[in-house]
Amino acid sequence: MTTSPATSGAAARVLDRLERLYSLGGGRGANRPGLSRAEQDAHELVTGWMREAGLAVDVDPAGNLTGRQPGARPDLPEVWTGSHLDSVPDGGRFDGALGVVGGLEAVLSASAGGPHERTLAVVAFRDEEGSRFGRGLFGSRALCGRLGPDELDQRDAEGTTVREALAALGLGPPDPGGWLAPAPAAFVECHVEQGAVLASRDAALGVATAVVGVARGEAEFSGLARHAGTTPMDAREDALCAAAEFILRLRDAAHAVEGAVATAGRVEVEPGAVNVVPARVAVSVDVRAPDRERLDAVLAAVPEARVHVTDPVPMVAGPSDALRAAIADAGLPGVELASGAGHDAMVLAAAGVPTGLLFVRSLADGASHCPEEETSGDDVALALDVLAAALRRLAA
Amino acid sequence: MTTSPATSGAAARVLDRLERLYSLGGGRGANRPGLSRAEQDAHELVTGWMREAGLAVDVDPAGNLTGRQPGARPDLPEVWTGSHLDSVPDGGRFDGALGVVGGLEAVLSASAGGPHERTLAVVAFRDEEGSRFGRGLFGSRALCGRLGPDELDQRDAEGTTVREALAALGLGPPDPGGWLAPAPAAFVECHVEQGAVLASRDAALGVATAVVGVARGEAEFSGLARHAGTTPMDAREDALCAAAEFILRLRDAAHAVEGAVATAGRVEVEPGAVNVVPARVAVSVDVRAPDRERLDAVLAAVPEARVHVTDPVPMVAGPSDALRAAIADAGLPGVELASGAGHDAMVLAAAGVPTGLLFVRSLADGASHCPEEETSGDDVALALDVLAAALRRLAA
Repeated sequence: MTTSPATSGAAARVLDRLERLYSLGGGRGANRPGLSRAEQDAHELVTGWMREAGLAVDVDPAGNLTGRQPGARPDLPEVWTGSHLDSVPDGGRFDGALGVVGGLEAVLSASAGGPHERTLAVVAFRDEEGSRFGRGLFGSRALCGRLGPDELDQRDAEGTTVREALAALGLGPPDPGGWLAPAPAAFVECHVEQGAVLASRDAALGVATAVVGVARGEAEFSGLARHAGTTPMDAREDALCAAAEFILRLRDAAHAVEGAVATAGRVEVEPGAVNVVPARVAVSVDVRAPDRERLDAVLAAVPEARVHVTDPVPMVAGPSDALRAAIADAGLPGVELASGAGHDAMVLAAAGVPTGLLFVRSLADGASHCPEEETSGDDVALALDVLAAALRRLAA
Repeated sequence: MTTSPATSGAAARVLDRLERLYSLGGGRGANRPGLSRAEQDAHELVTGWMREAGLAVDVDPAGNLTGRQPGARPDLPEVWTGSHLDSVPDGGRFDGALGVVGGLEAVLSASAGGPHERTLAVVAFRDEEGSRFGRGLFGSRALCGRLGPDELDQRDAEGTTVREALAALGLGPPDPGGWLAPAPAAFVECHVEQGAVLASRDAALGVATAVVGVARGEAEFSGLARHAGTTPMDAREDALCAAAEFILRLRDAAHAVEGAVATAGRVEVEPGAVNVVPARVAVSVDVRAPDRERLDAVLAAVPEARVHVTDPVPMVAGPSDALRAAIADAGLPGVELASGAGHDAMVLAAAGVPTGLLFVRSLADGASHCPEEETSGDDVALALDVLAAALRRLAA
């Protein structure tokens, strides 16, 4: 692959801007919690870049930022790209921000490629990560009228409500039950993979087939707290041994189902003393699979897990096909993978917007949500080309 | 079995006194931490009972309390019984205190049984549990000159040293390297089993063959902290799965060795997040067996465990045979078992004192170190008879 000097220039500009966003919040990595001053600073910086580029800027009551490049038929539903500008504490440079900063370049490049019918827009959604108020995907859910009834009254650790946080930034409150803008004709999100599948297949880019379904919860095991020295092995009810068997069964069940993953990430042991047989153990459970059938197949092996299931969200043919065609035109391998993490694309797809999700190869063994998160400039350049081509196709 | 009216009276007095000691520290159970005011109150109460009974009372610099009934040959090494008066937080009525309060009755009963050559004594050792300063077995180790060189300068959670705690009670400091009294000819400790072996064999009493060897330490497992959603199962290094396999292997190894037990009681998981593959897990390891060979057989199955080994301490024929004979004379079954917990008897035996350990049946499924700890009055009565007979035999 070679990249044109123009694209290289756009990729270099993207990397430079990601670095500027990265330095906003202070700390060891990206520190831009949703609805914080640092996220607001990021939105203001990007607003400036949108205006410089000649886009028409709009901010909705949830604080979502849209930059529009009008098409020949502004009456038609628009074509959007975008992602989020907030970050987890000490996060990476690319997560979210690449989809906004890169999306801006792609919109410009797509509209420079000739006349297009539909208006093109790049959107920066608020508070995708939920590091401050917990739930996340706030801006995209607000856009689609999918906020919970009491969600604006939820409080952060310091007692500030969402409503107050919005007001402090001169925003809101959004109507919790109504769309904040006409639904677009298509939405394509560009995001780093945050995993190592593309790297393992030597592929710069991939197209998501779905955002996986997630079953999350806990399994609890009971035993008898007995003296570690005076209780023979055959007289024990050891909650930790039961939990250990569960953890391995969960792992084996996920191994047996193609595309499924399962994680026990947290363990609590009571009483948790060196010399007492464990009486109660709680194990966190996180199971993910590209479709409900596979999710249920894993869960069937661990009936003691009490989980809450978020259904898988399939990506839609139109935007995904546009991405596939652009990837093929660029001479790149066509890798398809499920998204193991949630994204704003999931919200829009679940709300009925035809949605596609373009993944860009993560380096550093897929590390994400940490300063080590890495993606190469060459891969960013390829992503901008493919995203622009897909947007052009969708807006034509 | 029937018990004589006299013995029943002694057992009733023992139960009454245990109840008085139990009420000393306040809280939900026994609360008499070693070297605390509550332990001191217990020592003062028992001192009064010893004096009432006509015993000659002595307190050594470590605070160990001895009540002596002189024999015909006070020049000969003495015969001792006893245990400790401190407790774990919210402990039970019997642990330790039975061996002191019951030991006092047994000494009186043994000396009332006719002339005896050797002086009989009942000892209350200080701070067996170590709930305040950590290490435990303080009084018996001090008696035998087995305190660590810096042990008097160890601090509790509030910064008070052992030396200061002793001084506040008008005690110490003991010579860390020398015996605080001439070594006795024999020591017999009477203690509740704190397990359910005697109950499972329908036996009121048992004789300890040894105090088990203990290997205590930790096993640590490393993995890679990766996103629970984006990391395929075959690309994971999950420290918790490795730990779960270890926990089950440890259990199975102990199951395979007669008389051995193994416990993983504490688990730490890092980062400990629901959606991150565990990167580091530490598991506590506690392995016990009646002899070094069996201890090593279990440890061989878990080479990743880093442990510190305290060797098993066999009980000695003389005092143990005196207990066996007294049990047989009482028409009781002769049950032998290893002591899975450490006791003052272990310290004296390791220091070369011929030592025996008499176990009294625990009820409540062997519960101990908790208010539910229970032993019947009938079993206490039998223990007093057997202990008195054994002391008489050893002092004759």
